[in-house]
Amino acid sequence: MQEKGLLIVLSGPSGVGKGTVRKEIFSHPDTAFEYSISMTTRSPREGEVDGVDYFFKSRAEFEELIQQGKLLEYAEFVGNYYGTPVDYVRKTLDEGKDVFLEIEVKGAKQVREKFPEGLFIFLMPPSLSELKNRIVTRGTETEEIIHNRMLTAREEIEMMELYDYVVENDQVELACERVKAIVMAEHCRRVRVEHRYKKLLEVE
Amino acid sequence: MQEKGLLIVLSGPSGVGKGTVRKEIFSHPDTAFEYSISMTTRSPREGEVDGVDYFFKSRAEFEELIQQGKLLEYAEFVGNYYGTPVDYVRKTLDEGKDVFLEIEVKGAKQVREKFPEGLFIFLMPPSLSELKNRIVTRGTETEEIIHNRMLTAREEIEMMELYDYVVENDQVELACERVKAIVMAEHCRRVRVEHRYKKLLEVE
Repeated sequence: MQEKGLLIVLSGPSGVGKGTVRKEIFSHPDTAFEYSISMTTRSPREGEVDGVDYFFKSRAEFEELIQQGKLLEYAEFVGNYYGTPVDYVRKTLDEGKDVFLEIEVKGAKQVREKFPEGLFIFLMPPSLSELKNRIVTRGTETEEIIHNRMLTAREEIEMMELYDYVVENDQVELACERVKAIVMAEHCRRVRVEHRYKKLLEVE
Repeated sequence: MQEKGLLIVLSGPSGVGKGTVRKEIFSHPDTAFEYSISMTTRSPREGEVDGVDYFFKSRAEFEELIQQGKLLEYAEFVGNYYGTPVDYVRKTLDEGKDVFLEIEVKGAKQVREKFPEGLFIFLMPPSLSELKNRIVTRGTETEEIIHNRMLTAREEIEMMELYDYVVENDQVELACERVKAIVMAEHCRRVRVEHRYKKLLEVE
């Protein structure tokens, strides 16, 4: 029986650089996982190609797919839908290939409910570590700015609870290396692989 | 407060190539963990240096250290003691450095009891995967040999239960890469690092 692939979910707060890290990962020729292209109702930006950057759909088409349960996760941002087609993900995992999603935090929460065994990686902005210094040692920011930053930071950290790994995006190359190391390590986790070795012993 | 280092334990059945993988790991200039040198009562082999390959001790010295609880783990093989001095391990971990042990399966079991939070990596012989083919498709081995191989394989797999990761030593370079990926990934595990980010929010 074909062993299933890993579902890898890269998420994190808006603006953290998820897309940049994802592009860096897939620019490496040794990357052995499949990128699940998102679906959206927003118009293509210049240079964006249907089926490469996104699957571009009309609002009616998207809503029909929602009704049919064809989306693993979806959310609406600034009047546009974004989502992950579920068929591609299931098919690719069943083929034993790892699937990589780069999605928003809300979407990741939906995926966690459906794929609890997935590999959830939270991309952390380096600004949070800078935040501490700024707040503690400087004190030049207005109280309101500090307050808003702390609120955002708190929200981010609450989201983090749902994740298996936290990768700081201090340098794109390094963040990319960490993500790839996490995937390699997960393929060696005893709970995932021991059945392979146990199976060998069933024949006697 | 200084964050503690990770205790990395590489073990596996005798003859699997633990020493070769360990040497390969430490031949890389970017390896950022400390090797904990074992202590033994056996005589130095040609070229072996005290304090580099082993700490060479007399039987009386070794037994005194056992009495004093100065060994994290120890075992006797073919009339000689082998063990890990505990002081170096604790001191280095307290300094925030990762410590790497390459030890026998029995020793790893002792370490697991004292450092349940350690990172336990089981090095798997590729011969076990070959074993299956040999047993299933050929049938040229005597029943006794097959039986003994299966017994050994069973013992190995029972030991595996105590480990976090299983690394197949099919190619030394690849095994080494997997071990390093595991250590990098563990440094990103949410349960290990979230306190860092949470701490940032205590100041407000």
